[in-house]
Amino acid sequence: MNFILNKYFIHLSEGEIPKYLLIEKHIKRLIDTNMVEDRERLPSIRKLAQFLNVNNITVINAYKKLQAEGYAIQKIGSGTYAKKKDIHKNFNREYSKALKRIFNEEIVDYVDFTGETPSGEFFQIDFFKNVLNEVLDRDGAKALICQESLGYEGLRSSISSVFWNKKVDKEDILIISGAQQGIDLVSKAILNINDSVIVEKPTYSGALSVFKWRRTEIFEVPIEKDGINMDKFEKILRKNNIRCFYTMSYFQNPTGVSCSNYKKIQILKLAQIYDFYIIEDDYLSELIYDNSIRYNSFKSLDNNDRVVYIKSFSKIFLPGIRIGYLIPPKRFKESIQNSKINTDISTSSIMQRALDLYIRKGLWKNYIETLNCAYKKRYIHMEKCILKYLRDKVEFLKPGGGLHFYLKIKENIKLNSVNIFRQGKDRGILITPGLLFYKNALEGKNYFKISFSHTNEEEIEYGVKILSEIIK
Amino acid sequence: MNFILNKYFIHLSEGEIPKYLLIEKHIKRLIDTNMVEDRERLPSIRKLAQFLNVNNITVINAYKKLQAEGYAIQKIGSGTYAKKKDIHKNFNREYSKALKRIFNEEIVDYVDFTGETPSGEFFQIDFFKNVLNEVLDRDGAKALICQESLGYEGLRSSISSVFWNKKVDKEDILIISGAQQGIDLVSKAILNINDSVIVEKPTYSGALSVFKWRRTEIFEVPIEKDGINMDKFEKILRKNNIRCFYTMSYFQNPTGVSCSNYKKIQILKLAQIYDFYIIEDDYLSELIYDNSIRYNSFKSLDNNDRVVYIKSFSKIFLPGIRIGYLIPPKRFKESIQNSKINTDISTSSIMQRALDLYIRKGLWKNYIETLNCAYKKRYIHMEKCILKYLRDKVEFLKPGGGLHFYLKIKENIKLNSVNIFRQGKDRGILITPGLLFYKNALEGKNYFKISFSHTNEEEIEYGVKILSEIIK
Repeated sequence: MNFILNKYFIHLSEGEIPKYLLIEKHIKRLIDTNMVEDRERLPSIRKLAQFLNVNNITVINAYKKLQAEGYAIQKIGSGTYAKKKDIHKNFNREYSKALKRIFNEEIVDYVDFTGETPSGEFFQIDFFKNVLNEVLDRDGAKALICQESLGYEGLRSSISSVFWNKKVDKEDILIISGAQQGIDLVSKAILNINDSVIVEKPTYSGALSVFKWRRTEIFEVPIEKDGINMDKFEKILRKNNIRCFYTMSYFQNPTGVSCSNYKKIQILKLAQIYDFYIIEDDYLSELIYDNSIRYNSFKSLDNNDRVVYIKSFSKIFLPGIRIGYLIPPKRFKESIQNSKINTDISTSSIMQRALDLYIRKGLWKNYIETLNCAYKKRYIHMEKCILKYLRDKVEFLKPGGGLHFYLKIKENIKLNSVNIFRQGKDRGILITPGLLFYKNALEGKNYFKISFSHTNEEEIEYGVKILSEIIK
Repeated sequence: MNFILNKYFIHLSEGEIPKYLLIEKHIKRLIDTNMVEDRERLPSIRKLAQFLNVNNITVINAYKKLQAEGYAIQKIGSGTYAKKKDIHKNFNREYSKALKRIFNEEIVDYVDFTGETPSGEFFQIDFFKNVLNEVLDRDGAKALICQESLGYEGLRSSISSVFWNKKVDKEDILIISGAQQGIDLVSKAILNINDSVIVEKPTYSGALSVFKWRRTEIFEVPIEKDGINMDKFEKILRKNNIRCFYTMSYFQNPTGVSCSNYKKIQILKLAQIYDFYIIEDDYLSELIYDNSIRYNSFKSLDNNDRVVYIKSFSKIFLPGIRIGYLIPPKRFKESIQNSKINTDISTSSIMQRALDLYIRKGLWKNYIETLNCAYKKRYIHMEKCILKYLRDKVEFLKPGGGLHFYLKIKENIKLNSVNIFRQGKDRGILITPGLLFYKNALEGKNYFKISFSHTNEEEIEYGVKILSEIIK
């Protein structure tokens, strides 16, 4: 026995530093240096306490701290296990570091296929500047002082009439600082620790992060060309007490899939039967290029108060303004509002006022039309380029809208998407590997995403051509 | 036995609604109607399952759902207990509803002693408008498009040189959307569920909310005229594994107390010995009226990387712009930055750029000087009024700065602060009862806070006079 315990030995002198801290630091070092391996079971509390000649509580505190630092996991009834940082986190870090470096140094000759939002090249800054000045002349210091916890009333009322034809009351709208905050607020207000959520597989990594941080159990349901696989979805619902289903209803990130009306209605029915809520992240539904696609949000089909609707203005409009809105189910209205107050009190008032006036003047509508026209051209062009250069190397679905394509590397190709990312980076092309979109990162190794929001037609052609040279 | 279980009986027919949901709804009704009392132990899983002739898992799911809805608490090894909403929540709701109603209807003839931030009456909107236009002319669409996860570089560099004399590097500064978000980010990045934190007693309710939501164990240490009681602080540290201590170092909210240099140094030493971190919420240190008070933040005294420094620009400058910054300990830099990304990606870029230019032009400094001068007058006046009208009714400490006084109702007075709040409201005076600042709300029933940020000298005199009529 002591043979196994030996590596845990540490000399515990009486001193200012509590013993449990010395023990914790020692075990951390064992894990960092691979003396204790990932997922190796640590000694039981009683045994280690006996071996080190300390109280049980000292070892308990040491293990508690290891857990807090992410170096251990406790499994009820089974003990405490060592933990190393996972591959997902590692690649995530590599990816975001690479992007940060490139963007911070403002290296401009990259072909950037990683864009998540419009680039601003079609935005008429002068219109917005006039609107901003009009707001300051109209509202004075009020525009900078007010903290409205639901958000600026004028903007809520614009949203109600322009986007919802007054079918949603302005009092039921909460202004938020972008969709990411929406997911965070909902998760704080509705999800408890150890609750279970279902997400699409693959899905937006920012949502996965929030659910992980909230310590929920995450179930993934594979996505098909018209939405999630309903059989697998129901199977999970039958066996588990599911609290929420997170979905992007149009041009899902990353697959580009839009959920069919039929499946939407089925999912809403199931929500009522199995008592769960649908978090609908409506992030790009303005950009529909395929005329056969009709816009029907889950929210507009919801008769049973089951949908949390989240809309980002940052995604489609101006990423830097950080504004979106959320329509909660009535029963969660108060708790989601409190969640907002606890998170950041309220969203910047002046930007809400400017956006409101921008919408009222019809400038929003014009801008979206401009974007639609410009991005449709790029969409068609990117599809052509993929077919021209990558036909034998990748498979893909036509999303019919949005800002990107999701490509599956064909099985005869030996390269995975991390290789393509790294080689691409060296040759001036940035792509988003599929790894970011799965709970288990490795499932995404044969997929990557290319977006056309930050690239003109010439760059699209050049970038796809280089990709075809990399993927052999 | 069945006699006790009888009230739990429910007819479970085969149907679309799962049985566990029917059971959960039934028990909820029992709690709502007081058939099951607060903290009453619910039947054991096995017994209820037998009694209702269902599987154990059905009851487990029902109890799990009750917990999720906040209707039950599980105590490991002891069972599941009913739970009712607490008095804190109830009064909180009454208070914020009253304020919301009054402010939304823009009833202006109230004397508002609840202000937490400067009112904006001294703010020169034209200066800010010019700055904003200069930014838009200089940066164009970039000002609206950029998402910088650390925040706008120019602002970070201004903060580094103007507020920290370059002793803090701009790369170690994270721009946030106000102090409330700072607390939320830190709590996500540093605190784990079931971690323990120490707060001052009383303390800012927004911080209490965040720690409660994060499911941490909260210890309170009473505050004295020069900071927390050190004996009680150390006693808690010795017995518990404390992760963080949350403190407002100057003009603490609500007591107005500033922590002495001596205690700051002691606390920093203890942080090193007991391995905890200090969350310093520096929210109003610009407003010092008593010349004997010197400004030394915990952060500036910290040699061991123990302090998370949070500074709100919203509090002192413009509440509606929602900007602040955070200086993390180096070891948490990455996790707090990720926490920001997961929470709302980044803070509105244009406002950061405007604030940066505003600081660079020296306008910030001028504005703070104006505020200092104006609020010092009000401070002196309010103290005079309290001594004139309330001398026999309340006790208080002179904060020497900030925006408010915290009054203790003398023991011979029968009224508590909720009574005063309610009667004040009816007579057009708004105060903040102490209840909001304690973990156990009732401990605050003999205290209330009056702020002079939204009231001129005439209103101060009138308001305090009315309060003296109410408190008999």
